Amino acid sequence: MFDFKYFTPTKVIFGKNTESMVAELIKEFGGTKILIHYGGGSVVRSGLLKRVTDTLEEAGISYVTLGGAVPNPHLSLVYEGIELCKKEKVDFLLAVGGGSAIDSAKAIGYGLANEGDVWDFYDYKRTATESIPLGVILTIAATGSEMSDSSVITKEEGLVKRGYNSDLSRPKFAILNPELTMTLPDYQTACGCTDIMMHTMERYFTNGGNMEITDSLAEGLLRTVKKNALILKDDPKNYDARAEVMWAGSLSHNGLTGCGNDGGDWMTHKLEHELGGLYDVAHGAGLAAIWGSWARYVYKNCLPRFKKFALNVMEVEDRGTDEEIALCGIEAMEDFFRSINMPTNLKELGVKPTEEELALMAKKCAIGVGGAKGSARVLNEEAMLAIYRASM
Amino acid sequence: MFDFKYFTPTKVIFGKNTESMVAELIKEFGGTKILIHYGGGSVVRSGLLKRVTDTLEEAGISYVTLGGAVPNPHLSLVYEGIELCKKEKVDFLLAVGGGSAIDSAKAIGYGLANEGDVWDFYDYKRTATESIPLGVILTIAATGSEMSDSSVITKEEGLVKRGYNSDLSRPKFAILNPELTMTLPDYQTACGCTDIMMHTMERYFTNGGNMEITDSLAEGLLRTVKKNALILKDDPKNYDARAEVMWAGSLSHNGLTGCGNDGGDWMTHKLEHELGGLYDVAHGAGLAAIWGSWARYVYKNCLPRFKKFALNVMEVEDRGTDEEIALCGIEAMEDFFRSINMPTNLKELGVKPTEEELALMAKKCAIGVGGAKGSARVLNEEAMLAIYRASM
Repeated sequence: MFDFKYFTPTKVIFGKNTESMVAELIKEFGGTKILIHYGGGSVVRSGLLKRVTDTLEEAGISYVTLGGAVPNPHLSLVYEGIELCKKEKVDFLLAVGGGSAIDSAKAIGYGLANEGDVWDFYDYKRTATESIPLGVILTIAATGSEMSDSSVITKEEGLVKRGYNSDLSRPKFAILNPELTMTLPDYQTACGCTDIMMHTMERYFTNGGNMEITDSLAEGLLRTVKKNALILKDDPKNYDARAEVMWAGSLSHNGLTGCGNDGGDWMTHKLEHELGGLYDVAHGAGLAAIWGSWARYVYKNCLPRFKKFALNVMEVEDRGTDEEIALCGIEAMEDFFRSINMPTNLKELGVKPTEEELALMAKKCAIGVGGAKGSARVLNEEAMLAIYRASM
Repeated sequence: MFDFKYFTPTKVIFGKNTESMVAELIKEFGGTKILIHYGGGSVVRSGLLKRVTDTLEEAGISYVTLGGAVPNPHLSLVYEGIELCKKEKVDFLLAVGGGSAIDSAKAIGYGLANEGDVWDFYDYKRTATESIPLGVILTIAATGSEMSDSSVITKEEGLVKRGYNSDLSRPKFAILNPELTMTLPDYQTACGCTDIMMHTMERYFTNGGNMEITDSLAEGLLRTVKKNALILKDDPKNYDARAEVMWAGSLSHNGLTGCGNDGGDWMTHKLEHELGGLYDVAHGAGLAAIWGSWARYVYKNCLPRFKKFALNVMEVEDRGTDEEIALCGIEAMEDFFRSINMPTNLKELGVKPTEEELALMAKKCAIGVGGAKGSARVLNEEAMLAIYRASM
């Protein structure tokens, strides 16, 4: 068991119509001039953006807006947001959307509060010492960025996708209304459920000092998402299932499911990051496409955890050798991915990298993690390439 | 499923020797003149208080100390603390101890920051609008006060025990070093485990809108504490078991295990509060002595939850009618209490109230909750008296 820090200061307001409280919350946290940052047109089309700006206007809160945060959000938009905020003297950021809008807003917050190029933080060159307070109205349950310390940005030049983690960026509040996620396309819902599960699974498959209570919370969360992802496939307007998945998304990445271990493995995420940088695939689908190959490459090195996962999450029968049980768990997870129409390899994901591209991704991934990384099994560039190849 | 708010801003620093970080944390949260509030002599005898004051002195942080917080902490000491803090211009409170020291410090914080008599807040007369920031070094895993919004104080005159809840009192930081709990007497360890389980069980046995994910987290937490309480009975210096219980204690009462339901039942706590006010019994033991009688009185009104508890927490066999399974779960819980030397009735608790005293406790309890309360089953004064009688 490892020592740990746990810090989740985000005030969560969960339930129907909770977006009506946004002005009150912004005032509570001292915001006077707001940047509303969002992604595509769905926030506009659904009328949510209008409801939010109406609420702010009624409360006498001044704002500017910036849309256009795309999945794998771009550095150029971050720069644009920083300039806009400087010009408009923004002191509070409000992200309305999913992980893209939130991560992009976090980067704007760093850039606004610290001198120099914001990319430095994502490029491991410097550490941010300040940020601008951020609130969130969540419309996609997936990345957990609404409570997490994490932000992932893609630099268009060279398609470099990098994450930066700091408690400074944990949102002050997160408004979670499951109804706002009801109109998501099925594919995005399934991608979100995959991402949520992966945030916990990355923390679960480790060789470093796990805690029983953390395991039991993680396993309970995974079972809940698995069950409710299947419900949503057939009944996407099911409020309770939307709520279960939405709350799981926040808990999955706020630190709770990693307390006491070595920080997690995270190699499926890192391998997917390169894929996402190169192909702009949906993050959740990319994770699903990689996971099985990763799992088969590493499971023998982390057998007790894979066995436990098989028994307690995938509810595989406790029969056979540990290896057989672990493999049954991996297969059951892939079956689950297929059952919610997620890919389990790159072909199903719809991408076909050349051998050169595979090698390039492995090389960039190895550079990105600083050589070799992983807890379930330490992976070097060669191992990364082997996993990419196996996932074809 | 109910809407909910979730707010756990406390920065948790968990692990060995983490108390050495106390000065750094106080500075991070702006403390310049500290009241160190503690309970009995064990904090002095163990050398912990000396280590803490040495650390503050090295860091150039000025402090005063106030010991004497007893279990069921007294209002008179709260008043004394408020006067001392005013005189010494204290701007940060540091509780070193268990729930008694923390709850007493929370009350001092309210009294210091708000005009008028601090008891008004506990007596439902007013709402606090401010508090003084508080940090905690925890030495007993039990009440969860290190992350909770709750504080329970006993007014000596009339032995009135009342709780007050406000986010204002959630500690800024909590230092959780499981080693600090290793010297606790077995009885106190078992009382702590009982209190921890009860904080989650009070939230679990409800008739109002439960969430699957909350249930799965609650059940996992309960299984973890049950298992590790038994380990600690035979091996009280087991670090991992101490750590599992300590972290469970914080999560059990920070709000996590109640998200999405109606706020919980809490009647076992309310019934025990009167008992604690009258007899000064250990809180955890009082809860154990009452719970079985409460459970038998209410379970038919909350059968799905009691059945689920029996199957998923007490791991009772899924055989027989729902009522039979529920009763098996209640019996298994009482067996567990006995196995860690907790009482399951008032006789085993060592108190023998007269019929007049039982009636007085029921009357005070009914007044305390405002007439009739409870979610598993609404209890009026007559029902409270019946449960007290059944617990003799």
